[in-house]
Amino acid sequence: MARPIVFLSDYGLDDEFVGICHGVIARVSPESRVIDLTHGVPAQDVLRGAILLAQSMLYMPEDAVFLGVVDPGVGTARRPVAVRDEAGFLTVGPDNGLLSLSWVGGPAEAVEIASPDAVLLPISPTFHGRDVFAPAAAHLARGARLEDLGPAIDPRTLFLLEVPALDVGETWVRGRVAAVDRFGNLQLSIHQSDLVDLGMQELSSLLVSAGARDMELRRVVTFGELQPGEDGIVVDSSGALALVRNGESAAEALQLAPGDDVLLRREAG
Amino acid sequence: MARPIVFLSDYGLDDEFVGICHGVIARVSPESRVIDLTHGVPAQDVLRGAILLAQSMLYMPEDAVFLGVVDPGVGTARRPVAVRDEAGFLTVGPDNGLLSLSWVGGPAEAVEIASPDAVLLPISPTFHGRDVFAPAAAHLARGARLEDLGPAIDPRTLFLLEVPALDVGETWVRGRVAAVDRFGNLQLSIHQSDLVDLGMQELSSLLVSAGARDMELRRVVTFGELQPGEDGIVVDSSGALALVRNGESAAEALQLAPGDDVLLRREAG
Amino acid sequence: MARPIVFLSDYGLDDEFVGICHGVIARVSPESRVIDLTHGVPAQDVLRGAILLAQSMLYMPEDAVFLGVVDPGVGTARRPVAVRDEAGFLTVGPDNGLLSLSWVGGPAEAVEIASPDAVLLPISPTFHGRDVFAPAAAHLARGARLEDLGPAIDPRTLFLLEVPALDVGETWVRGRVAAVDRFGNLQLSIHQSDLVDLGMQELSSLLVSAGARDMELRRVVTFGELQPGEDGIVVDSSGALALVRNGESAAEALQLAPGDDVLLRREAG
Repeated sequence: MARPIVFLSDYGLDDEFVGICHGVIARVSPESRVIDLTHGVPAQDVLRGAILLAQSMLYMPEDAVFLGVVDPGVGTARRPVAVRDEAGFLTVGPDNGLLSLSWVGGPAEAVEIASPDAVLLPISPTFHGRDVFAPAAAHLARGARLEDLGPAIDPRTLFLLEVPALDVGETWVRGRVAAVDRFGNLQLSIHQSDLVDLGMQELSSLLVSAGARDMELRRVVTFGELQPGEDGIVVDSSGALALVRNGESAAEALQLAPGDDVLLRREAG
Repeated sequence: MARPIVFLSDYGLDDEFVGICHGVIARVSPESRVIDLTHGVPAQDVLRGAILLAQSMLYMPEDAVFLGVVDPGVGTARRPVAVRDEAGFLTVGPDNGLLSLSWVGGPAEAVEIASPDAVLLPISPTFHGRDVFAPAAAHLARGARLEDLGPAIDPRTLFLLEVPALDVGETWVRGRVAAVDRFGNLQLSIHQSDLVDLGMQELSSLLVSAGARDMELRRVVTFGELQPGEDGIVVDSSGALALVRNGESAAEALQLAPGDDVLLRREAG
Repeated sequence: MARPIVFLSDYGLDDEFVGICHGVIARVSPESRVIDLTHGVPAQDVLRGAILLAQSMLYMPEDAVFLGVVDPGVGTARRPVAVRDEAGFLTVGPDNGLLSLSWVGGPAEAVEIASPDAVLLPISPTFHGRDVFAPAAAHLARGARLEDLGPAIDPRTLFLLEVPALDVGETWVRGRVAAVDRFGNLQLSIHQSDLVDLGMQELSSLLVSAGARDMELRRVVTFGELQPGEDGIVVDSSGALALVRNGESAAEALQLAPGDDVLLRREAG
């Protein structure tokens, strides 16, 4: 029985890139189901892709091969790799940190994808998704062993992404807008667990400084606790704090975008 | 043999929501094919989602489980439900009317999705697609019975959506732009059958008032009967009337958008 | 074992058209995998669709049925056809040239899709994807013979698309921007092989006139050879030349769009 493949990229769906990779996978492993986690990662945003891939794992089939392609350095010296982590999960992609947040317990075994049997020759210098990563993932899904894909490399040499630390004071924490979803919800780089560390998790409202505004926002559990058009703070489905507006786009209303600074403080007093 | 799942939502494809739901489904029912009807329902537009879901049923596998998630009240008191209609079709989603236009002959049996075995715990207050609806649909697809998902509820208590009635006179009918497709075709809330009721179905042209314009438009069967750039009225593939322009976007040319009023009249005289 | 279906269209993914076709396919051939090559072909751009379909074939399962729907003449006299080419590949779509660039060795056998058993009746005049092409492709995928779909037609009567010729001088070649991808890379209608014909393939840089600019651009193999923000020329994964900018959108920076003229010259010398 072929394993499923979970596929994340920044290719978008307007072009043919994702479809071509699906074709390549189907040629190698016709029985594998492909789950498109998302192809809407902002172009070349390795950190965002890494976070999404890591957060998804809990919800994916346990025998899945994880294929990630956000690869600004395509064709350069960065290595194409396949990795088994300490929990047994298989990940395939560029060695630029994209996979590194997903490794449960750290990387246990790794190979550089290089075997002529595992890739499409000649390898295009600009589309390793098609020529290297998709075929390698499909070979693994069909039952190949890691060592069939190329020479072993020392897992300690793999590039590890660092998630930027939050700026934290005694009564405040400063983070960023990590993402805006289709509904205009502003996911922050600040998590519920960060508030716990600060002893701020019980507060029923927070002072928020973002863009040109200072606001006092209520913490609520569901959108429905807010009045229509009222802003508030929820813990979203990934555990992150999010600035939201009931029935409208908070991103539009507050004029905020990914990367913008957000400061959360206790109420004065 | 696992049933297929037909999945409609307003999640869009830029975010990871749809991919996560696919993963959850694959964990529960790895053999189920998932047919993505569309995830482009305008955000929180329950009526549009309900119409699309109902119109699709004729074209979907007869043993499909229909999973619909357009859920502005996520996390509030509205119930998550699974329903079998009088024709035997299974639908899963929020009890906000989204499913109600799809029930052939009305709802026959319904349960509130609540069994700990049928959902992912803890249930996030903001992503019931992942934690409640997708797993429940997958359990049904894999062979669970309705009663395995939670306690029975009286089908007569289910929320039924009302499609807004048309405003109709002796020589005219007033409706709205229901949707604009990728080609800029303006689908109206007025159907061919409404014209029949008015005795207007045989007219070769109609007077159309929409936006700031009054136009006399020819009724045609295909786009190709219109001159390039000419506007006309067709019956679209769902039976609705649509204002179209050959080779161009009628929406752009006529500056109309979903929700805008459209008045159709017989020719004067 | 049912064959897979490769599906390309200009339907986009915001509407329900693609999902409906998937449903129709699943009703006829539930075991067929559907590979969505892309549905982002610019609306009604038959040439672009034809090129994408032809370029994909090398990467798709060899037993696939190719389903293409870019069909500005839907409902008019243009014929719906199914074609087997000299290499045995099966293609299904409108007889408007969309399929014609994919025929390896030319078309060997063709039928007009007309059998009541192979289509959905009544056939909508505006959605042959649903009523004609998807069901016909699914019947072929499930094992039907070409002749089961309708009467044979003379393959020599099929419409053949002509790819516009390049304008070529002794020291220059003039083409167009063929496409812009999600990263803003400008794919040209000029291929690496065209430069070979001109003896220009060895030049390390080219003079490029496009929009209001004259630039000397370096030819590089990977994006990474360019400085951040530097423009250059690569051979892309389809063999076409592309104007690119490292880490940014060349389309935005150079203000170019599909259809714009691009002139490549040797360095003055």
